[in-house]
Amino acid sequence: MKPDDKPPIDATARKPIVPNRLYAPYLEASWGFKNAWYPALFSSEVGENEVKGVTIASHDIALRRVKGRVHAIQDRCAHRGVKMSLRPTCLTDETITCWYHGFTYGLNDGTLKTIVASPDDPLIGQVRIRTYPVEERAGIIFVFVGDEDYAPAPPLTADLPIQITDDANPVAHILDAHVYVRGIHREGNSNWRIAVENGFDPGHLLIHWDNVIVAATDRRMGLGARPIAEDAIKIIDEPNGPRGMMNMYNTRAYKFFMENKVIGMKARGKTPYYARTSVYLPGVLLVEHWPVPGWAQYEWYVPTDDRHHVYWEVLVGHCRDDQERREADYLYDHFFEPLALRDFNDNDVFAREAMQDFYENRDGWNAETLCAFDESVIMWRKIAARFNRGIQDPPHRRGR
Amino acid sequence: MKPDDKPPIDATARKPIVPNRLYAPYLEASWGFKNAWYPALFSSEVGENEVKGVTIASHDIALRRVKGRVHAIQDRCAHRGVKMSLRPTCLTDETITCWYHGFTYGLNDGTLKTIVASPDDPLIGQVRIRTYPVEERAGIIFVFVGDEDYAPAPPLTADLPIQITDDANPVAHILDAHVYVRGIHREGNSNWRIAVENGFDPGHLLIHWDNVIVAATDRRMGLGARPIAEDAIKIIDEPNGPRGMMNMYNTRAYKFFMENKVIGMKARGKTPYYARTSVYLPGVLLVEHWPVPGWAQYEWYVPTDDRHHVYWEVLVGHCRDDQERREADYLYDHFFEPLALRDFNDNDVFAREAMQDFYENRDGWNAETLCAFDESVIMWRKIAARFNRGIQDPPHRRGR
Amino acid sequence: MKPDDKPPIDATARKPIVPNRLYAPYLEASWGFKNAWYPALFSSEVGENEVKGVTIASHDIALRRVKGRVHAIQDRCAHRGVKMSLRPTCLTDETITCWYHGFTYGLNDGTLKTIVASPDDPLIGQVRIRTYPVEERAGIIFVFVGDEDYAPAPPLTADLPIQITDDANPVAHILDAHVYVRGIHREGNSNWRIAVENGFDPGHLLIHWDNVIVAATDRRMGLGARPIAEDAIKIIDEPNGPRGMMNMYNTRAYKFFMENKVIGMKARGKTPYYARTSVYLPGVLLVEHWPVPGWAQYEWYVPTDDRHHVYWEVLVGHCRDDQERREADYLYDHFFEPLALRDFNDNDVFAREAMQDFYENRDGWNAETLCAFDESVIMWRKIAARFNRGIQDPPHRRGR
Repeated sequence: MKPDDKPPIDATARKPIVPNRLYAPYLEASWGFKNAWYPALFSSEVGENEVKGVTIASHDIALRRVKGRVHAIQDRCAHRGVKMSLRPTCLTDETITCWYHGFTYGLNDGTLKTIVASPDDPLIGQVRIRTYPVEERAGIIFVFVGDEDYAPAPPLTADLPIQITDDANPVAHILDAHVYVRGIHREGNSNWRIAVENGFDPGHLLIHWDNVIVAATDRRMGLGARPIAEDAIKIIDEPNGPRGMMNMYNTRAYKFFMENKVIGMKARGKTPYYARTSVYLPGVLLVEHWPVPGWAQYEWYVPTDDRHHVYWEVLVGHCRDDQERREADYLYDHFFEPLALRDFNDNDVFAREAMQDFYENRDGWNAETLCAFDESVIMWRKIAARFNRGIQDPPHRRGR
Repeated sequence: MKPDDKPPIDATARKPIVPNRLYAPYLEASWGFKNAWYPALFSSEVGENEVKGVTIASHDIALRRVKGRVHAIQDRCAHRGVKMSLRPTCLTDETITCWYHGFTYGLNDGTLKTIVASPDDPLIGQVRIRTYPVEERAGIIFVFVGDEDYAPAPPLTADLPIQITDDANPVAHILDAHVYVRGIHREGNSNWRIAVENGFDPGHLLIHWDNVIVAATDRRMGLGARPIAEDAIKIIDEPNGPRGMMNMYNTRAYKFFMENKVIGMKARGKTPYYARTSVYLPGVLLVEHWPVPGWAQYEWYVPTDDRHHVYWEVLVGHCRDDQERREADYLYDHFFEPLALRDFNDNDVFAREAMQDFYENRDGWNAETLCAFDESVIMWRKIAARFNRGIQDPPHRRGR
Repeated sequence: MKPDDKPPIDATARKPIVPNRLYAPYLEASWGFKNAWYPALFSSEVGENEVKGVTIASHDIALRRVKGRVHAIQDRCAHRGVKMSLRPTCLTDETITCWYHGFTYGLNDGTLKTIVASPDDPLIGQVRIRTYPVEERAGIIFVFVGDEDYAPAPPLTADLPIQITDDANPVAHILDAHVYVRGIHREGNSNWRIAVENGFDPGHLLIHWDNVIVAATDRRMGLGARPIAEDAIKIIDEPNGPRGMMNMYNTRAYKFFMENKVIGMKARGKTPYYARTSVYLPGVLLVEHWPVPGWAQYEWYVPTDDRHHVYWEVLVGHCRDDQERREADYLYDHFFEPLALRDFNDNDVFAREAMQDFYENRDGWNAETLCAFDESVIMWRKIAARFNRGIQDPPHRRGR
């Protein structure tokens, strides 16, 4: 869609609804996409025999680690619906027990194995709660969330950024053998889609204009970038692999704005700097060469409900030995986390939460007015609308 | 209903709705049952000439004590709907005055006697707010809440537990002549029905498994109990008296589980212990021989709105003279309240509040999967559905 | 409407709906009246180059002062709907820039002048957000809020109280040349209509009965007043001027109650005192000779949404020179603000917030029972229903 084809727009008037039709399913995905791998917790957050509860796209899930392996099981007892993770009760290595009446489920298949208070109950062996596939890689516990009968689950790699190959000095992939992976996650008070779109948006540099990491490293940061070539935005559609898109930042495909004469603003900083963003289903961002060359920042925006997500920021770097690990720890602790993951990205969190009211209460999906660099956002919406494996239904709300 | 008749159940699938039909009116009673006696406050909470406001099943009620007698009157001024209890204003012994414009109502019949700011107003004598029957017994102010034209109000005893007669050493009844009555009330963040059902549920011992009162007294507590005889659950349907049911705990009618081999758990404690639970409309629990033999615990779960109730815990013991009263005070202060009403029952409060999300937002009344010992819960629901004197309508919500 | 014509009313029964029909449009105005001048902020709250955001009747508005003049512009960026006032960004004297992507709008007409991150964007010059007329008078920034195509905007005086002429010692008008104007504003947790009605209500003296300002000045305050003459309530309908009504307090038109024998209450205070109230669209109160003779209190109840308003209290006095100004400051600081605007009017705030639940959740507009002195309230409702320039629609809520 070329913005030039649009009729003149008065933001105070009703918007034409045509553009939305290009990605209508995306607009339905308030609760996220289903049948996808999402990060649930860092490995370090679930110790041996611990039970932790998470909520992903309305699914309440209990994670328990037994003999090193993490199991994921529905965090709602079949009996009266309480979350088992509220008072973790584990009586055998193969089961999880509800703290209330002792409904005890097999971790492997969710079958009711016994009821502490009713050992000969007819329900035993007849009732089942669901379990979820788990992959624990790179210090992160990933859970496949969606329909229980969706099979086979795609490989984890299908829902991760691609392996970078078109770069002389490529950043490491999170699943590479010799990598350093560390990060944080926190609650985001906005719909997950608003958060994703902020991540790779080529036009939001103004909120980072005066950030400490930019000033301290004297990086040359332009004002914005607009796709001008047909292949400026590369669609990624690997066989059985990730689906997404990449902003192919180079001076042939993109026009970079270093000055805006109307308001008298020029690019700051003396050191040229190259970074590149790409985004993948179900909502994963890769920023290559960030926060410093050779490193990569991964971000996930994991839907909790239709108004909240968990914002994951993970840094990935090459790391061959303990010496390099110690060096990476030093950089992470004293530079990357405080200046990149916190100070810099706090501005993104602010922007996402600032959009929420408009999209939630003011019909933002129809009332917004997208501009030239939003071709990138529109492409993402179309890709997401086309390649997702299903749209998560809202939870059932009939019961009050 | 025998659980054995049910088809195999997959908790992840849609539930059959047949069981609900057996107690459909109960499922409508989100705001409580009407035309029933409920405790409003302890006598000590309404001093001479004091005015206090309470809300019971959506009814806002002002209580005023004059010359010892407590009056209950609608706590909404007819004029502009403010609660009179917000700024108690009493100018004569026979009236209550709204603090805003001075609408002054007779305590006995609710008639508008004068308006401070409009002494010759045509409304005087023409307008009326409603009053409520009050019974103050055993240190508790009971109010009959429901339709104003419901008459005659049944005796208070119709909405209290029965007098125990089938016990060699029966516990005292709260209305007996020589009793000690003391307790607490607090807000419960759940629907009242969820709270009632937790009270007499024969299968929830796991949440009390390691409670201090159990450990400290070395009581033998089984894992659960399942009704096996036709008369395991006794229906109480006294002429003009209480309606409810009693779990007839004895080894003929109930199978007691002292061990669960699947998870390797055995009953704890060496001292055999006997207690018995019964439950009555509109939502009153009696636990005989608790927290120690010879005492009784009464509980009320008084609906406030559809998501909150007031949880009453009252201990009743025989008490013939001041010496026994002093002894009871000592036990209450240093044993009963801290270890029974607080430490032990805090676990029940936790469980009730943990259920609320499921029943409120996840269609819990249809999605639950009841088990063998829940025959007791189902019986209560059927009795409540059958014997209630009316279902409280939600308040009118047209006005915004 | 004479109350005497009404059938006997039982406040516990359904109300006749006839009276409402007399002012039906008023009942629709939950979000306020549109096409009216409202105070937004005191002049002192928007310094040179500062940007502040306010919400009036659901309109989010950014105020920016440039070279002394205040501009009012839509506080929602056309692009993705964030409030520009969240992070004020002003790069030229003629524009306001959104902090997120740099959408830059002309302050005069709201046209998109440039996008920092997209200087050659096709949207530039094609997109527009709306602006609002501003009048800054007497230290207050007034904004004309409503339909953008409503033209011409009426003069500010059309939405202010009238100039008093029927008084030997008339109070100053807020727009007079030699006046002292000072006050406060604060959030009110009620619908704006409930607040207005409290302001001029002739029957609410009971809440001020024992206020410090009354006791300290030994003012004679009656219990209430009831209109008895045809012209007790004067309708104000000036050509191109304010519309409203005035309670013509004098002993011919009003019956003043100095005693209520039923509850044995008599007027207090020895010093006779005269004050008069009048109320104007879109919701402005004038109290003449308050808090002391010769002064006037202006009040606005500016709707924010359907449950909140901003309560403005402004005192206006004659003031010819610096000496009188210093004297007025002394009185304001040590008498007027603490005893009138705070201590006295806090009771009104209490009353308004106490009514909100009834009108919001209990169908108060139909369930209320108005009395004799409420002829004044009913007259206001009819005037407001007839003379308003439009009813504000609620914001669009389709988008979640």
